[in-house]
Amino acid sequence: MPTAAMLVIGNEILSGKVVDTNSPYLAKQLRELGVDLERILTISDDVELIAREVRALSEGFDHVFTSGGIGPTHDDMTMEAVALAFGRELELNQNMCQRIEHASGGPANESQRKMAMLPAGAKVIDAGDLWFPIVVVENVHIFPGIPQLLQKKFESIRDRFRGDPFHLREVYVKPHESEIAEALHALLGDYPQLMLGSYPRIGEPEYRVLLTLESRDPGYLEQALASLLERLPGDAIHRVG
Amino acid sequence: MPTAAMLVIGNEILSGKVVDTNSPYLAKQLRELGVDLERILTISDDVELIAREVRALSEGFDHVFTSGGIGPTHDDMTMEAVALAFGRELELNQNMCQRIEHASGGPANESQRKMAMLPAGAKVIDAGDLWFPIVVVENVHIFPGIPQLLQKKFESIRDRFRGDPFHLREVYVKPHESEIAEALHALLGDYPQLMLGSYPRIGEPEYRVLLTLESRDPGYLEQALASLLERLPGDAIHRVG
Repeated sequence: MPTAAMLVIGNEILSGKVVDTNSPYLAKQLRELGVDLERILTISDDVELIAREVRALSEGFDHVFTSGGIGPTHDDMTMEAVALAFGRELELNQNMCQRIEHASGGPANESQRKMAMLPAGAKVIDAGDLWFPIVVVENVHIFPGIPQLLQKKFESIRDRFRGDPFHLREVYVKPHESEIAEALHALLGDYPQLMLGSYPRIGEPEYRVLLTLESRDPGYLEQALASLLERLPGDAIHRVG
Repeated sequence: MPTAAMLVIGNEILSGKVVDTNSPYLAKQLRELGVDLERILTISDDVELIAREVRALSEGFDHVFTSGGIGPTHDDMTMEAVALAFGRELELNQNMCQRIEHASGGPANESQRKMAMLPAGAKVIDAGDLWFPIVVVENVHIFPGIPQLLQKKFESIRDRFRGDPFHLREVYVKPHESEIAEALHALLGDYPQLMLGSYPRIGEPEYRVLLTLESRDPGYLEQALASLLERLPGDAIHRVG
């Protein structure tokens, strides 16, 4: 299964001024596609730090997605950092320049020209009806921080990442987690390939724990689910989804 | 200023089944306290990976906060990983055992005893009215993944982290970011210590960009704010907060 990492760039997330909704969105999308998101890292707007982390993630994972830092202001330094990560120059990309001038209806000002400075050899991919394309350098896909734009852009290329997806079943149970832990342990003994999650919930009147069962093999998943339901007392189950 | 890193542990976040609300909460709290959160890292339930990252973060930052992986089930391995990170044994903590037995009104079962296995020499700190204490090893504070519990626990010890807080002003402006980028750049030339953020918003009828100005020095901040307002056309301002 292909692996992925996400790099969230932005002081605004670390300082609590903006909530990162991009990584939850991408996590869900990648799961549906069958891509294994293994790491989400949030760091500040610091060129050398971003470059170092881009480099490390690019080496460690099949796909890297960055969000943030591609606008025209002083704190937008993702392009410079990606160039640095791969030892490339930052250069005025004519394709980008034309897109900007077409979108704004006139010659690019200094700030707009900054947005057209891309790492040498960057690939520029059309993103549906957005004038601003997706920029790809090596295995690094560079996305904006604005959630609406990130989502539109990702949707326009999501089929490129389609792998072998997981199937999911959910079981909502009434006992405390400590009362069912042994049954879960025994279930995993019989179904070692099962991906089993156990998530306590507070404040839900009808159940205390959400169990998630996942497998790429739908038959294996259904057998494991049946086995789990047999192991739990009948009145322990609130709902199976 | 003290620095901090947060380590979010859990496959459920990476696979998009659960949205991490703990790091936004902690980011906001630490900012208010004057602690510089420099890194948020989300990784999966893998003992050796967790141990490696705990070790690296512990060396790189003044405070480390972990969330998740301290329940009684098979996928809860944070305590084991923290022990491994610092080369300590995992041992039955009598204090924890007594708390568990007191809370459940009887002898601990196997799963509950698992929750009482802590790294040798761990500090156990009372968390308000919760029976489950905060466990601290070196500079690593171990929190549960359940948001309500993490928040209650953090509130009970937040004053330990109080530093030298930032002051914040916000300016909502109507022009596009590319139209004000040069003014912002010039502002930073005159106020190099200012922390200035520029965040475009889509779908807001009355403004296009949120500017945030921050400084530890309230006088400096007010001067920078006045200087910014002078640099922007009068009709560019939607609101100053």
